[in-house]
Formats: sequence, C-alpha cells, structure tokens
Amino acid sequence: MVKTAAVSLLALAGLASAFVPTTTNFRSANRWTIKAKDTSFTRNLMMKLGADDKVILIGVAADSGCGKSTFMRRLTNIFGGSNVGPLGGGFDNGGWETNTLVSDTTTVICLDDYHANDRSGRKVTGRTALEAAEQNFDLMYEQLKALKEGKTVAKPIYNHVNGTLDRPEEVVPTPIVIVEGLHPWYDARVKDLLDYTIYLDISDEIKRAWKIQRDMAERGWTLEQVEAEIEKRKPDFNKFVGPQKEVADSVIQVLPTELTNDPEGKILRVRLIQKETGDYQPVYLFDQGSTVSWIPCGTKLTCSYPGIKLGSGPDRWFDNAVNVVEMDGQFDKLEELAYVEKHLGNTASKYDGEITAQMLKNKGAPGTLNGSGLFQTIVSLKIREVYEKLSGKKVDASVKAPVAA
Amino acid sequence: MVKTAAVSLLALAGLASAFVPTTTNFRSANRWTIKAKDTSFTRNLMMKLGADDKVILIGVAADSGCGKSTFMRRLTNIFGGSNVGPLGGGFDNGGWETNTLVSDTTTVICLDDYHANDRSGRKVTGRTALEAAEQNFDLMYEQLKALKEGKTVAKPIYNHVNGTLDRPEEVVPTPIVIVEGLHPWYDARVKDLLDYTIYLDISDEIKRAWKIQRDMAERGWTLEQVEAEIEKRKPDFNKFVGPQKEVADSVIQVLPTELTNDPEGKILRVRLIQKETGDYQPVYLFDQGSTVSWIPCGTKLTCSYPGIKLGSGPDRWFDNAVNVVEMDGQFDKLEELAYVEKHLGNTASKYDGEITAQMLKNKGAPGTLNGSGLFQTIVSLKIREVYEKLSGKKVDASVKAPVAA
Repeated sequence: MVKTAAVSLLALAGLASAFVPTTTNFRSANRWTIKAKDTSFTRNLMMKLGADDKVILIGVAADSGCGKSTFMRRLTNIFGGSNVGPLGGGFDNGGWETNTLVSDTTTVICLDDYHANDRSGRKVTGRTALEAAEQNFDLMYEQLKALKEGKTVAKPIYNHVNGTLDRPEEVVPTPIVIVEGLHPWYDARVKDLLDYTIYLDISDEIKRAWKIQRDMAERGWTLEQVEAEIEKRKPDFNKFVGPQKEVADSVIQVLPTELTNDPEGKILRVRLIQKETGDYQPVYLFDQGSTVSWIPCGTKLTCSYPGIKLGSGPDRWFDNAVNVVEMDGQFDKLEELAYVEKHLGNTASKYDGEITAQMLKNKGAPGTLNGSGLFQTIVSLKIREVYEKLSGKKVDASVKAPVAA
Repeated sequence: MVKTAAVSLLALAGLASAFVPTTTNFRSANRWTIKAKDTSFTRNLMMKLGADDKVILIGVAADSGCGKSTFMRRLTNIFGGSNVGPLGGGFDNGGWETNTLVSDTTTVICLDDYHANDRSGRKVTGRTALEAAEQNFDLMYEQLKALKEGKTVAKPIYNHVNGTLDRPEEVVPTPIVIVEGLHPWYDARVKDLLDYTIYLDISDEIKRAWKIQRDMAERGWTLEQVEAEIEKRKPDFNKFVGPQKEVADSVIQVLPTELTNDPEGKILRVRLIQKETGDYQPVYLFDQGSTVSWIPCGTKLTCSYPGIKLGSGPDRWFDNAVNVVEMDGQFDKLEELAYVEKHLGNTASKYDGEITAQMLKNKGAPGTLNGSGLFQTIVSLKIREVYEKLSGKKVDASVKAPVAA
C-alpha cells in the first residue's frame, strides 16, 4: 500500500506513468499497464549490444521506488527508442508481472526487484521496505556489473501486488541501462558502477498536498490517517533514501509554488540542481555563473495568472558546488517553452529548439507544461551527452533511430 | 546658498563637475572652473552650423539646476567633441562669469540664466528661485526657438555668486543644444521645442544623506539645521520642478542601495526609466519585455562586497509605459562593466563594447563605477540616436570628429 501510494503521488507531478489506462488495461496488477495498440511488444524489439558497445548505467532515485515512466519515455525518445513497453517475457511469467521497461535502446530496471525478502518475510524481520537491510545489494551489484560487461542476467521480480518474489526474468544489456528505485547508490559498490545519478526530490509539502487530496477526497481517509501514514514513513526514508540526494549529479526538486497560494500542490516550483563536476557543464539561464531571475511574461509573452518565474545561479548543495535552474509556474502553451528555451545555455541540445521538439513528442504527458517536464527533458539530453562521451558514439537527433551508429 | 548646495550634492553622485579644480582655479566665482592647460578655449572652437544642419534641442532637468558637467563631458565625447570648456567670451565679460559650456559640437545652456529677477529682486517678490513666476519663460522660449532656427542669440547670464543678472553673452547654435536646469519643460511652449528630455531624480534619502554628510561634517551644521534646510526647499521643488519627471523621455533615478546598509549614500541604486515611445527602443537586460534580475558576481566575475545587482523590466511610470533598467552597487573594475554591457540590448551603441570604451574616456570621473555613469553613458548614446534620426546625419563613432559628415 505504501509503495502504490508513492507511485500515484508521482503520477500527479508528471513524474510517473504516461501509460495511463486510457483504453484497455490488461491487468491492473501489471506495473506497466499499456494501451491495446501497444500489445505487440516482444523481446526482439531490443537492440542487441554490438561487440564494441559500452553499456552506460544511469541511476534514478526517488521516494516512489519505480514508475517514472513519463521520464523514461522522454529519455527513450531522445535515444531514438520509438518503442517502449514492458519486458516481453521472462522465463515463463509471460511478461505481465515484470517491473522492467525496455525500448530499442534502453532498459529500465526497478530496484524493488532486489528486495531481500518478500512481504511476508518482512513481517518476520519487522523491517520496512525502505531499510537497507531489506535490499539484496550483493545481487544488485553482481547483476548490474554483469550487465555493464555486456552479459545477460536472470533478475528476480518483486511482485508489487501480492508482495512476492517471483521467478526471475532474463535481462539482456542495451546501450543504456537505467536503474530506478529507492536505493540506487546507497551501496558503494553499486554507486561506483553508475555513470550518472539523478534524484527526484518531492518536497514534504507537495507529498502531503497530493496525498491529502487523493487519500481524503478519493479514498475517504481522515486527515489524521493521512498524517499518520506520512509520519510513519519518514524516519526510514530520511535514514536510507534521502541522503542519496546529497551526492547526485542532478536533483530535480519539486516544491510548492511561490507565485500564489496553492495548497493543493497543482502549481509547482521545480528546481534542477546540477553538480559542477567539470565533466558536464550545468544548464544555466542567460549568463553562466551569475545569479538571474526572470519573469518572461510581459510585453512579448502573455501568460495567465500566476505566470512563470525562472531563475538560475551558482549555489551550494550539501558539500558540492552546483548550479541551480528553477521554474515556478506553468506554461499556457508550448510556444512559451520555445521562448524560454532560447535563453538556456549548456542544454546539450543538438539543434535550436530541440527541448521544445522533445516535449512536443510527449505533449499530453503529465508535467509537460511545468518545470518537471522541462527538467526531465533537460536531464535526458544530459544523459545523452554522458552516453556520447563515454561510449564515443553519436546519437542521431534527427530521426528516431537506434543509438549506435 | 541653496543653489550651490544642490550643485555640490550632485558632485557627490558623479552627476556634477568633472572640472574639479585639481590645478589652478582662475576665479572661484566661475561656474566652469577649468584646469590651467585648458585656458586656450576660444569661441572659434565651436563648429559652425552648416546651411542644412538641424539643431537638436535636449532638455535635462534636475534639482541641481546646473553643473552636471561629467554628464555633459560623456555626451560631448560621444558626439566627437574633444574640446569642452566654458563659452569663451560674450560681449565684454571675458567669459568668466558664463554658465554656458561649449564643445566642438554641443552647447550646454544653464536655464538659471532665464531667472526673471536677480537675488535682490526675489527679496522684493518674496519668491524662491524654484517658483515658475521667477523664470522668464517668454525669453527662454524665444531664444531656444531662435537657436533651433539656427540663429545666434544674446542670452542673459545669472551670476550664481553675487546673484545678479549680468550682461548677456552671445550664443551661437551648434548641432546639439542642451538646456539644463530646474524648469526645462515646465513651460508648454519650451517643452514643444525639446527633442528629448532627461530628468535626473535624486531621491530624498540620498539628498539627505549627502547633505548631512557634507553640511554637518564639513560645515559644522547641526542635524536640525540640515533638516530645516531640506524641508524649506521641498514644497516649491515638489510643486514646480518634480512634476516634470512624470513626462520625461528618460529618468535617471538615484536611490539608496538595497544590497547593504549604507546611511552615507556612498553605494547607489540607480534606475534608468525610459518611456516606451515607439520612436526609440528602451535599453533592456537579456530579454526585451520581460522582467529580469541579475547578479553578475559569481563564478566568472568576482566582485567585492556588496557586489552588483542589475534588473530590467516593463513598468508604469505615472501615466506612461516604460522600461526600467536598474543597477545597484558598483563595479570594482571596468572589466566588470564590459561583461555587463554584453547583456544589454537596444543600447544604440555602434560597436560591441562602445559603452565601456566611452566610460574609459572618463575613467576618473565621479560615478563611472556605478549606475549613474553607466546610465549617463547609455542616455548619451540614446541622444546620439535621436540626433541621427532627426538630423539625417551620422556621427562617426571611430574618431573624435565633429558631428556632421
């Protein structure tokens, strides 16, 4: 229940499923419910890794655990992966219980699959799924290392509906492997395998606003029940998951708007916090290295209330020098985004307007009109930059083609 | 006393005399005391107006009345006037009592010369020099109209030292004629003659800070005396002078810094408020029409405390749509200005870096390191743009040559 709730929270922010069941759901138990027209996915859609191909491993941490499929779709679009769907068949489970998402070029592994015990096992240990001791870091490390070496692995499956550890599925390496979950770089050995790390940081206020809205309005919970649920989860989250954000290469932080009073958390202030690593230049607004705030709504761009406010500037994030880009509010139209894009630097885009073009590919997806969509897209471009740098290959931005040329 | 005090206040802001008596003063009574090496000025330095030349008339209003010679020097530099000095000889007064400043291309007339009565006359009327009834607007209008028509006039001289109206001096029209004083567009007829209007708006807080600093520290006044002097001047100023700022094409507003606590008024927040007339595009920072704030000090530019903060955006100024550019703080070095200049648009500069180059010509002048120097220079470029548009001539920006080509 805790897990499912967290996933739904992210859906509200546009950080979660684009696979919304607008048509037929096949099994609601399936983590990757897909539309009827998408049922033709099979494993042969996966691009085989060439002999000289490197596997780039990306870590995505969030409270939700897994389910950030809008973000994954944005990412696979950028890598030319036009087909995105659940891993189409493990050994004999028919693919319907999988947490693994694949495209032509990318594989997204949910780290819940590395839970050490199933739900009944945790009743014995008395620990929550948030605790480090409930993760099988040894196996996680071994299998991610093997994937990086181009080897196929038999990965366990954690069934979120009945809380069981199901029979493993075969995962074949692709040029990009993304691991998402609660503890992608909690373990130092796993951390060393990751080429880039992204932390999705939903503030307590926003988590609370969304939870109240959904659990009270839709499920009939009392405010006390909602508050208790939030408080119950906090200590382990803050002990085992939260600290990972301190060292992430990029953090996408979702906060309440400062433009107006919005207790429902519908208008978001989203910040992209990027480490100044030297390897990859952080995105900035107008002028690298200086502090800028910008309200683009004015004489040229007419935005409806409460408008949009952006900001950018160097800052400290725990022990690291970072650059922060911020967007409060949301676009009325994607033309406004095109206008904003012109004034962003170091976006790693391959042509003018690529961010807007990428966002248009996911026009209806949640978060597209606010900072979460914008920064997910920017981070996706950054990951492409990481991939190109580490693999020595170029991703063709003009067509939806597989990665390696 | 009131007048002299006001002039000195402006000197502190860098809005006043660059002709500081660093070497020999010839007569302290002279409004335009000049250095020994400059004594060769004679009237034949003035450029004769060609048959097809237009006279462009610019109005500069300020509490000081007259004495903004740093501003005038910035302006004459931009117009290629390399020689700036007092009008060198009226009928027989030897030029030493003149308030008129001339360069190769420009003439600066102090409107105090159009006082209706001398000091003893005002004792009879009981009015202050700030009152409209104490100005001879009929003569002001007639003579400025004549100058615009290319005619030479015999302008009265108001002697600021002994408060007398001295024998008139001959003023020959030049391509640019600037009238500065308390009431340059109080009279509707005179206002209609002006091609561009600039109001220098020193805030009450700054006036007060400077006055306290000077009159208490240097003249031994009590705080009560200083306050009384300020309060005495206010009603007439607010009635007859202040309202002109509501309709100025450009206002340079000098305010206390918001970066730190500075009761002495040494660090200034200066705003350039430009009317959206349609004829001339206002200067902006980064992105025309939107609201931007910018702290350039950061990783690239290292500024000492309290640094620099700039801003830009559309606003309302009384009944008019305006764009405001603001600078708080001061440059440590002129390289910082060069960096800032790159991000300003619509400056009417003729080449990249012209603002910085122009400010380097007046490197030691007061105000060069803060917003007053920057915005004086920008307004000077704007006046060049006005001149070029109205005269149909081009000013050569590459050399210090006379205006008309």
